Amino acid sequence: MPTQATQIPAGPETPYLLLDVRKLDANIRRMKAHLAPLKVTLRPHVKTNKSIPVASRFFDTAAKPITVSTLHEADFFFQHGFTDILYGVAIVPNKFGHVRELLLAGADLKLILDNTQTARLLLDFALLHRLPLKVLLEIDSDGHRSGLPPCAPEIEEIVKLLKGSPVDIVGVMTHAGNSYNSRSMAEIERYADQERDAVVASADMLRALGAHVRMVSVGSTPTALFSKDLKGVTEVRAGVFAFFDLVMAGLGVCGLNDIALSVATTVIGHQKEKGWIITDAGWMALSRDRGTASQKVDQGYGVVCNMQGEPIDDLIVVAANQEHGIISSRSGGPVNLLPVGTPLRILPNHACSTAAQYGGYHLLHGEDEGAAYWPRINGWA
Amino acid sequence: MPTQATQIPAGPETPYLLLDVRKLDANIRRMKAHLAPLKVTLRPHVKTNKSIPVASRFFDTAAKPITVSTLHEADFFFQHGFTDILYGVAIVPNKFGHVRELLLAGADLKLILDNTQTARLLLDFALLHRLPLKVLLEIDSDGHRSGLPPCAPEIEEIVKLLKGSPVDIVGVMTHAGNSYNSRSMAEIERYADQERDAVVASADMLRALGAHVRMVSVGSTPTALFSKDLKGVTEVRAGVFAFFDLVMAGLGVCGLNDIALSVATTVIGHQKEKGWIITDAGWMALSRDRGTASQKVDQGYGVVCNMQGEPIDDLIVVAANQEHGIISSRSGGPVNLLPVGTPLRILPNHACSTAAQYGGYHLLHGEDEGAAYWPRINGWA
Repeated sequence: MPTQATQIPAGPETPYLLLDVRKLDANIRRMKAHLAPLKVTLRPHVKTNKSIPVASRFFDTAAKPITVSTLHEADFFFQHGFTDILYGVAIVPNKFGHVRELLLAGADLKLILDNTQTARLLLDFALLHRLPLKVLLEIDSDGHRSGLPPCAPEIEEIVKLLKGSPVDIVGVMTHAGNSYNSRSMAEIERYADQERDAVVASADMLRALGAHVRMVSVGSTPTALFSKDLKGVTEVRAGVFAFFDLVMAGLGVCGLNDIALSVATTVIGHQKEKGWIITDAGWMALSRDRGTASQKVDQGYGVVCNMQGEPIDDLIVVAANQEHGIISSRSGGPVNLLPVGTPLRILPNHACSTAAQYGGYHLLHGEDEGAAYWPRINGWA
Repeated sequence: MPTQATQIPAGPETPYLLLDVRKLDANIRRMKAHLAPLKVTLRPHVKTNKSIPVASRFFDTAAKPITVSTLHEADFFFQHGFTDILYGVAIVPNKFGHVRELLLAGADLKLILDNTQTARLLLDFALLHRLPLKVLLEIDSDGHRSGLPPCAPEIEEIVKLLKGSPVDIVGVMTHAGNSYNSRSMAEIERYADQERDAVVASADMLRALGAHVRMVSVGSTPTALFSKDLKGVTEVRAGVFAFFDLVMAGLGVCGLNDIALSVATTVIGHQKEKGWIITDAGWMALSRDRGTASQKVDQGYGVVCNMQGEPIDDLIVVAANQEHGIISSRSGGPVNLLPVGTPLRILPNHACSTAAQYGGYHLLHGEDEGAAYWPRINGWA
């Protein structure tokens, strides 16, 4: 067992976030290798990493198209040389001023919308400021969230409203979020087809209505990795694939060993009679995300590994307080009560929510392992 | 209805965090009024607010005793004049160096521990550096987390180990975390008695063993507010009472109208057939905390209010994606599809987790309403 208190490495105070750069790079290579024969651009979603050094690993080209989930991300990445940005949440008036600033500064920012009301508000703004805007119509391909139904009559209404205006409909986009709830690979593949069909048909409708469609955008990690035919699609957005997490492993999209992100923690005590190990990584460190709760195997608040990243027995974080994690065995079997001071790593349910609890990443297996820290941003301003 | 898009106030981009300073002050007054006749000191837990201006509202005295959940909080508050600090998570070796820095800088930092192994590690450190340390023994009053059983034989072992050493056992502490799961006021009162009895008996045991006990510390918002007799207790720790939240309202500890914290969001679209209103406050803005899921009334990801803080019909956030909230009626009844641009406020399940998603508070009803922003810290370093 390498998990003895006497072997604590000199390192940051726990809890902290660890990123295995070798796994990160391998995950990115896998996605690129899958997409290359499908002839689509990868426009990674940076909402998972929110970090310049991480996002830079996606690209070996001058063009660095990205998707962002907040205008704060748009600011941050634009300031660091990422100019081709798709903001993936429908725009509203209190953000119009911010959009204008980004555009005037030179960002090639694309917005999305899914209704005539927003189109009208945006049109008024564009006319008032004589501001050319690029928008994509959001299509709902699986009923999980926002978006217009594929080929909805309202699309025609919006096209007519915006025709000849400064608001240019450059394409369509969708996100097959329901693929996260798939129960089989076959189901993921069906979602991938459905996602493609929804935007390709809507793009055709737009073209028939006279719009100059340049972007046909799909994306979710499961559908992106298991799509077989993306004819008519121009780009794929996905984010979590670079880190992976227990939800993706539970789906069968990756293995536990592919997960690049973990939370480093320390044993701080025990409840011997209960077979509990108490750590200093509670839900603040792991996030409240319980994404595996609805999967075949519920991993609690995370899978417990030694510092080499190897799972220890069937230990999981069975419960969490704000700054306390409670580790026990998933099966209810006996627990090896690792001594106080033992360093551990926890694989998280959901990379996006866990990473957001931190200001940056400590690195494993990077060029500068141990020394380097990759900062990230959080929040909306 | 004041929730029309045309009446959007000039304000920050959504989502953002709103703190009603009038409610904050009233909640603090209520706790102080309850504790005054019980003759105990309030040592508020700043883990909920992590903000100097908020924490300052607790005190009109020179002494400003606080509880922190991380050493990062200890640093931050100490730098701002809070010297009397109890760190409420059991200490481990990778934090010893940090503790020493704080003590050498002049902080009156108290640590906690709940086992002989930690006591021995801490003793070695104190001896090595000739560093006087104050510790409290953590007592487990309700089986929910860490701590020694009340009057556990191991207490004697620890006292003997530390006797005459630089590690001074100054008292005992406990946290009745299970009170959050109470089903009645009577049950909360029983937890309060149980919490008190656990530490008072353990403090007596310590005194009998020759320890100079100065602190007998209890605390959780429900037990603090409904304790009737705290004889033998010297101080109460509690944090969430200053903001309150839906979990506390579900317990009956406060009313919805007492909740000082909310998330400001905007309607960005709809799914008309489903009766869904889509907003820009997803789980990143609200946190993944679903604390009311196990209560009598499940409030989803939060109760939907207008900008005056009044609940709208029985609307709740029924589901959440990273940056999208889905609002619908709790009853499944018809939903008034508020137009795009409508500003809303969401009351959160859990103030600690929701506030942690933000860098600070925008103010309502403060001296500087609208203008002022109270920053907070997050993370561990």
